Amino acid sequence: MTARRAGAAAPTVWIINPNTTAAMTAGIERCARAVAAPTTTVVGVTSEIGPASIESHYDEAVAVPGVLRAIERGEREGVDGYVIACFGDPGLDAARELATGPVLGIAEAAMHTASHLGRGFSVVTTLARTVGRAWDLANHYGMQRFCRGVHACDIPVLDLETDPGARKIVTDACREAIEADGSDAVVLGCAGMASMCAPISAELGVPVVDGVTAATLTVQSLITLGLGTSKRLEFAKPAPKDYRTGG
Amino acid sequence: MTARRAGAAAPTVWIINPNTTAAMTAGIERCARAVAAPTTTVVGVTSEIGPASIESHYDEAVAVPGVLRAIERGEREGVDGYVIACFGDPGLDAARELATGPVLGIAEAAMHTASHLGRGFSVVTTLARTVGRAWDLANHYGMQRFCRGVHACDIPVLDLETDPGARKIVTDACREAIEADGSDAVVLGCAGMASMCAPISAELGVPVVDGVTAATLTVQSLITLGLGTSKRLEFAKPAPKDYRTGG
Amino acid sequence: MTARRAGAAAPTVWIINPNTTAAMTAGIERCARAVAAPTTTVVGVTSEIGPASIESHYDEAVAVPGVLRAIERGEREGVDGYVIACFGDPGLDAARELATGPVLGIAEAAMHTASHLGRGFSVVTTLARTVGRAWDLANHYGMQRFCRGVHACDIPVLDLETDPGARKIVTDACREAIEADGSDAVVLGCAGMASMCAPISAELGVPVVDGVTAATLTVQSLITLGLGTSKRLEFAKPAPKDYRTGG
Amino acid sequence: MTARRAGAAAPTVWIINPNTTAAMTAGIERCARAVAAPTTTVVGVTSEIGPASIESHYDEAVAVPGVLRAIERGEREGVDGYVIACFGDPGLDAARELATGPVLGIAEAAMHTASHLGRGFSVVTTLARTVGRAWDLANHYGMQRFCRGVHACDIPVLDLETDPGARKIVTDACREAIEADGSDAVVLGCAGMASMCAPISAELGVPVVDGVTAATLTVQSLITLGLGTSKRLEFAKPAPKDYRTGG
Amino acid sequence: MTARRAGAAAPTVWIINPNTTAAMTAGIERCARAVAAPTTTVVGVTSEIGPASIESHYDEAVAVPGVLRAIERGEREGVDGYVIACFGDPGLDAARELATGPVLGIAEAAMHTASHLGRGFSVVTTLARTVGRAWDLANHYGMQRFCRGVHACDIPVLDLETDPGARKIVTDACREAIEADGSDAVVLGCAGMASMCAPISAELGVPVVDGVTAATLTVQSLITLGLGTSKRLEFAKPAPKDYRTGG
Amino acid sequence: MTARRAGAAAPTVWIINPNTTAAMTAGIERCARAVAAPTTTVVGVTSEIGPASIESHYDEAVAVPGVLRAIERGEREGVDGYVIACFGDPGLDAARELATGPVLGIAEAAMHTASHLGRGFSVVTTLARTVGRAWDLANHYGMQRFCRGVHACDIPVLDLETDPGARKIVTDACREAIEADGSDAVVLGCAGMASMCAPISAELGVPVVDGVTAATLTVQSLITLGLGTSKRLEFAKPAPKDYRTGG
Repeated sequence: MTARRAGAAAPTVWIINPNTTAAMTAGIERCARAVAAPTTTVVGVTSEIGPASIESHYDEAVAVPGVLRAIERGEREGVDGYVIACFGDPGLDAARELATGPVLGIAEAAMHTASHLGRGFSVVTTLARTVGRAWDLANHYGMQRFCRGVHACDIPVLDLETDPGARKIVTDACREAIEADGSDAVVLGCAGMASMCAPISAELGVPVVDGVTAATLTVQSLITLGLGTSKRLEFAKPAPKDYRTGG
Repeated sequence: MTARRAGAAAPTVWIINPNTTAAMTAGIERCARAVAAPTTTVVGVTSEIGPASIESHYDEAVAVPGVLRAIERGEREGVDGYVIACFGDPGLDAARELATGPVLGIAEAAMHTASHLGRGFSVVTTLARTVGRAWDLANHYGMQRFCRGVHACDIPVLDLETDPGARKIVTDACREAIEADGSDAVVLGCAGMASMCAPISAELGVPVVDGVTAATLTVQSLITLGLGTSKRLEFAKPAPKDYRTGG
Repeated sequence: MTARRAGAAAPTVWIINPNTTAAMTAGIERCARAVAAPTTTVVGVTSEIGPASIESHYDEAVAVPGVLRAIERGEREGVDGYVIACFGDPGLDAARELATGPVLGIAEAAMHTASHLGRGFSVVTTLARTVGRAWDLANHYGMQRFCRGVHACDIPVLDLETDPGARKIVTDACREAIEADGSDAVVLGCAGMASMCAPISAELGVPVVDGVTAATLTVQSLITLGLGTSKRLEFAKPAPKDYRTGG
Repeated sequence: MTARRAGAAAPTVWIINPNTTAAMTAGIERCARAVAAPTTTVVGVTSEIGPASIESHYDEAVAVPGVLRAIERGEREGVDGYVIACFGDPGLDAARELATGPVLGIAEAAMHTASHLGRGFSVVTTLARTVGRAWDLANHYGMQRFCRGVHACDIPVLDLETDPGARKIVTDACREAIEADGSDAVVLGCAGMASMCAPISAELGVPVVDGVTAATLTVQSLITLGLGTSKRLEFAKPAPKDYRTGG
Repeated sequence: MTARRAGAAAPTVWIINPNTTAAMTAGIERCARAVAAPTTTVVGVTSEIGPASIESHYDEAVAVPGVLRAIERGEREGVDGYVIACFGDPGLDAARELATGPVLGIAEAAMHTASHLGRGFSVVTTLARTVGRAWDLANHYGMQRFCRGVHACDIPVLDLETDPGARKIVTDACREAIEADGSDAVVLGCAGMASMCAPISAELGVPVVDGVTAATLTVQSLITLGLGTSKRLEFAKPAPKDYRTGG
Repeated sequence: MTARRAGAAAPTVWIINPNTTAAMTAGIERCARAVAAPTTTVVGVTSEIGPASIESHYDEAVAVPGVLRAIERGEREGVDGYVIACFGDPGLDAARELATGPVLGIAEAAMHTASHLGRGFSVVTTLARTVGRAWDLANHYGMQRFCRGVHACDIPVLDLETDPGARKIVTDACREAIEADGSDAVVLGCAGMASMCAPISAELGVPVVDGVTAATLTVQSLITLGLGTSKRLEFAKPAPKDYRTGG
């Protein structure tokens, strides 16, 4: 086993949607493809088990097995890298144990990316009860000094695509967030907001970061650099053991 | 709904073993019962789905649904409080959403308890790859300034009970840890070490904290005080939604 | 000397009121007794020297010798554990050196307890000049990430029992605090508020934590677990030396 | 002015070497080109004023005007993004004020990249006196919890290319660093080490991150995403004013 | 070389103004002289190269070479200590490498001094875009827990002396800052505000700290104590090397 | 009442020795006088009540009333500023409430002073059980990132002057500390070491900071600047109230 893999010339990256709503996967895949290199194959993958949307710690917890099952399938198919396309980054540590190539969460990628654009960013998320998780992740990634505030716009995840007024509500929340926080940039706190990124940025005149596209390019870059999760210790592949599955 | 429940006079506390090894549950239940009040009913509950032992992020992730299923069953049965008896505290946030009464993880309870006993403690855990998770939890609970070091003794979880030399190995690791870290106390970093707590303390002459007993008494105290997870916002019961279960 | 003491079957816990107002001690003792196990003997102890109430760094500093004198007397009488019942936790480190059994401050116990109930709590205290001390303690105990705000309600300590409007003022301050801070729970920042805990919680619909009862149960649990302050180094009993007492 | 620029289809990225040693620029440019997309034009730019190598705070301070002069020239030429190719990231904040497109430092890019690969990384740098600067940057970027150690290998910067034993010395320092720190990955702490990245990774079996290539791909990604430094406030273009130049 | 120099009986301290505006230097020198001991010679030194005022990262970066040139000249003249009289503390680390005696920045001195006067201070600075730099310095000096807020009063640096309404604007900003932040004291965030220190303090009734005078006395004290920057490692004098100067 | 007092032209500063050993006060006073301005009157004051030396939390706690009594006496006599000459800085917050002029602790002054001299310092203290207190203070003052280590040399406080081998032991501890910690400077962690400062610095070739002299000059500077503890809120003079004194 080598730690450094030859940078795949024509890599395949899976964008895993941890919820089971295929329509959302399609939108995510479209955004990811639009930024990936022509030589990169981007595939949106809908989780086969779990909740229709992720809006609580419970939803996130029960979404994780589906994410891991997707990673296991991807490994069998030789996938080069993965994006977990939910802003709670569910199952990220476990996914890194399973995968040979790099795995990024979209909150992770978005926060890191936004930190390169100024002194601080505001996160705009869906429901208020997800605000705490966003702060946990900011702390976990060392981004708390860049994260100026996390703001909910009180739209359920699945309404982002169907509610015709959704984009205006999110845009208004972004505008208020940068004013209140004195921020330089906005991070969109839900994979379902990916397609809103360009128009909101155009309207507000500040950089707006979507995690799906940010993570796709980060994974693509890591593959080019031949980098993946270190298998030295904590993230080595778990030893096979007896797992009892539910009935 | 009232935020403060009448302190149950004769409460029932479930000690949920997130792995599927029933023998381990029995040992955990025994330790918890030995410290609970005579009026408290302590029940050890073995998870019905998940891994035989938890020794990686992957194991932990796939153990969570079983923990949550146990909580859901407990809620139907009117259980007053819960302990999640694995040192990674798997599923704690989600469990708090589901439960009406208090839920404690054993890492959480052990670290808080040890912080009352001196300036700093050392954690002694099983395999080296679990060290990172213990640090994550110390940070999450605000205990990083008390946690002086996390040390692995390289015994698989299920060998703790069967390996006749296990206690000596753990004891030696504890001794070396307090010397190396200049610690005042030791935290045992696995539910499977619960029964070793008293003899190791006797041998080393420092307080040794086991999370199973610490969490049982913390939950019992919270019930007596009429306290449980706040349902004000983040930890309110999740709205019912469509969940696709695996095949 | 053993580090782990046999868990006393019928322990005695002293609740030391660091100010010299006996009426306040009586109220504190009543609250503590109401939650202690039937086998635990709870005794309220009024400090013999010091200020009538503690509302400044100066008050706190001059209250400490009385607390320590009470601990020394308790040690001669074989007391099993102590609570220091003032939200500044005066003399806690020194008391831990003197005592064989566990010693808890009520700020310490309340903050730790509240951290188990959600993402964050607000502290409501008496006079504005005590706010800084509460923050110092939150930092010292690692609780700063849970402590969302410290709010004064501008009632002198001794008016808490005599002012008929006190409970309403405190309740209003609690309501405003959880709104302003987005908190899940409230910590009452004065021993004199202990009896208000249940009614405020009932009125506001969130968990409200009183340090006197929280500390009493924490000490009782530590005694049950056979745990006390580590005597390994920093908190070993101080060597006897020449002390000049004031005239 | 729009905040979001159309992602340049065929962008130009300048890799600015803040020291005046052209041979080093050539090596850096080669490494950057090897990873950039075929549609990206990578140009190595040697600073026209400043020190021959950067090995102290003084060197770094006097290198900054040359970096800024290069950025000013690049802006006149319509360059799309910049990498500052010295591990002290000299002049980064000022460069971000001047440039319309994104600017990354190599320490910044390397540390962020390494944080995606495991729990912690070790930095291996040149002279011991540069260790402090690396820690400052880790703190500044929020990477201190991932940065496990910074280790000097005591090779002057300009000897990295000329000393035939340099690679072995650096490799040995990397090996010792990951052992001592328990790290998952290594960050090379000097642009002059860029070409050693692949062989050291191959030899040690852990991911090794070079900042030059990491920063080049990060800048390229930001351009693709249409992202650059926010011009909302702190990093707006400085107002023109009277500058007295030295004689 | 000895680490401890004989405390100079009649030391010379240079107050270096990093911008090129001589009128401002005169004001700074006057303030510094007013507090220095009669045996201390205070000399204001105007930078020979750089911007007319410092109001951006760019301004600060291009001011550094002038500061360092002044230090080099001072070293040749046997100066005993230096103050860098701009609130961004430009070139401080490099200056410490060059100088034999102590070097203090005015932000550094002011923040440390203010930390002795209460729990927290507010900084009042000139333009909004300098706020971020003040926070960076607070973090760098360990003063972030004392720094309650940084507030801009939107006066350009050079207008501080010429705008007859400047003092009222600054005073109002100070008043609002201590109210908003709940601060005990104010730190003036620009060398050009030095002469306003006493009247603002008189008007607001709180301590107001000016960095120029604070730094002058700190340097004077260090000289008296025979203390200067440690030359043990990081801040040893840089080795002479080839520097290419601009044309 | 004005916040800013006219800088006393010929101020009196009391150096309060919180223990009751007059011989130690004499040594402290001698060191303080040697660095104070000729116009400053330095008076060493021995505490009238308390322990003969301070080597535990208990000693420190019972020393506080004596310190405060000295401050109260000083206020009646119009003293301009105070130094609390014990490295635990006992009673500092309370003393600041009582005094009109500035009050500094020697740990506070020494750590702040040492932070100006390089990246990090080591503290060398007396007994091992005092190490924890030094860390608490480093955290409290924001100096934890400069404090690289705290090392005990296992000499009781009162032996520092009488044990002929004391200086060698302390010197050796300092040498080992800077090597082990990679420090730039040393802070002497006991007032009784003040006279060793110059010879240890001369022997080791690094700056050595003694808190007694550092604090004396800091207080003298604050007086010159007309600065003292803010009386705005937390540190306002405590309201008179009933204090019961011990029998």
